[in-house]
Amino acid sequence: MEVSGKKYRTVWMEGSSVFMIEQNKLPFSFEIYKAKTYRDTCHAIKTMITRGAGAIGAAAGFAMAQAFLESENPDLISKAKKEIESTRPTARNLFYAVDKVYKAGLQSANDALTEAQKIADKDAADSRQIGGYGNSIIKDGFSVATHCNAGWLAFVDFGTALSPVFSANEAGKKIFVFSNETRPRSQGARLTAWELNNAGILHKIIPDNACASLMAMGSIDIMIVGADRIAANGDVANKIGTLEKAIAAKEFNIPFYVAAPTSTIGINCRSGDEIPIEERDPDEVLYQIGPDEKGEMHRILVASPGSEALNLAFDVSPAKYITGIITEKGIIKANKDAISEIR
Amino acid sequence: MEVSGKKYRTVWMEGSSVFMIEQNKLPFSFEIYKAKTYRDTCHAIKTMITRGAGAIGAAAGFAMAQAFLESENPDLISKAKKEIESTRPTARNLFYAVDKVYKAGLQSANDALTEAQKIADKDAADSRQIGGYGNSIIKDGFSVATHCNAGWLAFVDFGTALSPVFSANEAGKKIFVFSNETRPRSQGARLTAWELNNAGILHKIIPDNACASLMAMGSIDIMIVGADRIAANGDVANKIGTLEKAIAAKEFNIPFYVAAPTSTIGINCRSGDEIPIEERDPDEVLYQIGPDEKGEMHRILVASPGSEALNLAFDVSPAKYITGIITEKGIIKANKDAISEIR
Repeated sequence: MEVSGKKYRTVWMEGSSVFMIEQNKLPFSFEIYKAKTYRDTCHAIKTMITRGAGAIGAAAGFAMAQAFLESENPDLISKAKKEIESTRPTARNLFYAVDKVYKAGLQSANDALTEAQKIADKDAADSRQIGGYGNSIIKDGFSVATHCNAGWLAFVDFGTALSPVFSANEAGKKIFVFSNETRPRSQGARLTAWELNNAGILHKIIPDNACASLMAMGSIDIMIVGADRIAANGDVANKIGTLEKAIAAKEFNIPFYVAAPTSTIGINCRSGDEIPIEERDPDEVLYQIGPDEKGEMHRILVASPGSEALNLAFDVSPAKYITGIITEKGIIKANKDAISEIR
Repeated sequence: MEVSGKKYRTVWMEGSSVFMIEQNKLPFSFEIYKAKTYRDTCHAIKTMITRGAGAIGAAAGFAMAQAFLESENPDLISKAKKEIESTRPTARNLFYAVDKVYKAGLQSANDALTEAQKIADKDAADSRQIGGYGNSIIKDGFSVATHCNAGWLAFVDFGTALSPVFSANEAGKKIFVFSNETRPRSQGARLTAWELNNAGILHKIIPDNACASLMAMGSIDIMIVGADRIAANGDVANKIGTLEKAIAAKEFNIPFYVAAPTSTIGINCRSGDEIPIEERDPDEVLYQIGPDEKGEMHRILVASPGSEALNLAFDVSPAKYITGIITEKGIIKANKDAISEIR
């Protein structure tokens, strides 16, 4: 995607360095982080300089390739592999990418490099395909609602939930996006809005509380969200709040789509009941970070002092609320048969 | 209610002065604002030093009484009446209180004072009654979810949605409250949590996005919210997000109650369709205010610079999602017959 007229991916490699858009600085400043060694790349993954399923996978693949470039010692290389894997131990794409690049690297460092590049390219191509399929269900004049950030910042390029929006915009369709703020981390207000701003797509940020009301008022034509994980029966784990919007969409007959590459489908996960709900740091609910009018950053308390918070990372939306899943191979129904056929 | 062991109402009169809990300073500091003249009280209503249906009504009544104490000139008194009415022109309770106190004041300033006090006392008594009825449906060990702040800070004492919680707590029941943050103004995280902290009631603040998920997990036994306005058919206008939670509650068979005095019922409003949805300042979505770790207050941007926001003040929950309405006269079904009977 373009930023100020220049094309970028969220993560890429040049020579032996990995470059990443510094996502912790977004949306307030746009900076590129340069990781000269695999350790630097590990640091970037761990500290969320790069984040999102696809971007983490690609960065981890590049980190593994860097390790092969940096040393020929098999012990050091296995140690590096373990280090990379420990940066985000719950990220499925990370393990997949590290494994593939590691195996290729056993032939030569150059093979590792080629494999890592292939993984990044495949991620971008899959996202682009999702955009093409998704575009087919977005009509001219549509208002699209989305939750969290499943845009290009979460992948190598284009993204998942936002890729159909970018494709529709490129195709000259007039569209409008309602971006749910997505508390507690506010990825919708910060990252999705930033992406839409960059692409010149009309949008408004709404409090998460307003989504059902806009559906009731007939202001939303379609909702598209991403997925952290899709079970074999079509249940979808995604950012907290997705369930609430999915239920409301069903209630008001608004098409509710999940956009995700088929690699998100966990064939060994039979249903959403098998997905444990992670808790994150309550401070994400109790504090907010942002710049004052002079651009100085502050971390402020936004709750009653002494009160505790509960911070569930994501929720599970049963398949019955989901109109369809937009994958790189086409749009399918959220059910067992359709899913096992496409895998 | 008690603050640090001392009993307070949100608004009260002593001599010719009106005293109010300074709600703009909450939850970060507890201060009392003293309004020596009706103009000071107007200022307090306008700047939301006092806020919430019941508290505004009582404060406006006291302001009207102050005007009679300050002058015997009928022209000045009518001018004061208009000034008080213009402080919050959409607050129903305000007009009701001002009218009543004005009529009493035509007899004597002392009659105005007595009438204003009666209004405040009636508000507190009604809230207490709501607590009693509401307590009857809260079982020992219940987890109660609530949205926004319909606690005692919004009324003269006890509140509406929280009054049953206070009554249950007083009755020795072990209860737990999930307080929805309630973006954009975060009254749940700031005011409701502050009230619960004060009353020593176990609670956690949750992002608005998490409510449906906790319902799905079986963690919520009952949800109680307040109301800005109830239509003759039982539709309820309340803080944005109420609709989303009401739909989810219905989906997961969680009892969903609205607690409000019968004065909230607009007999001339046939259904929720007749209630226009107000928009508020988008900056409430884009900025947040709070103290840093040193206690210094900052206003920070919490969204992508340049993006706009849409800020709907409230939404309308159709009667079909509402299990019952807890009033000062008892608990009724949310339908036309039950409502017209109780009015």
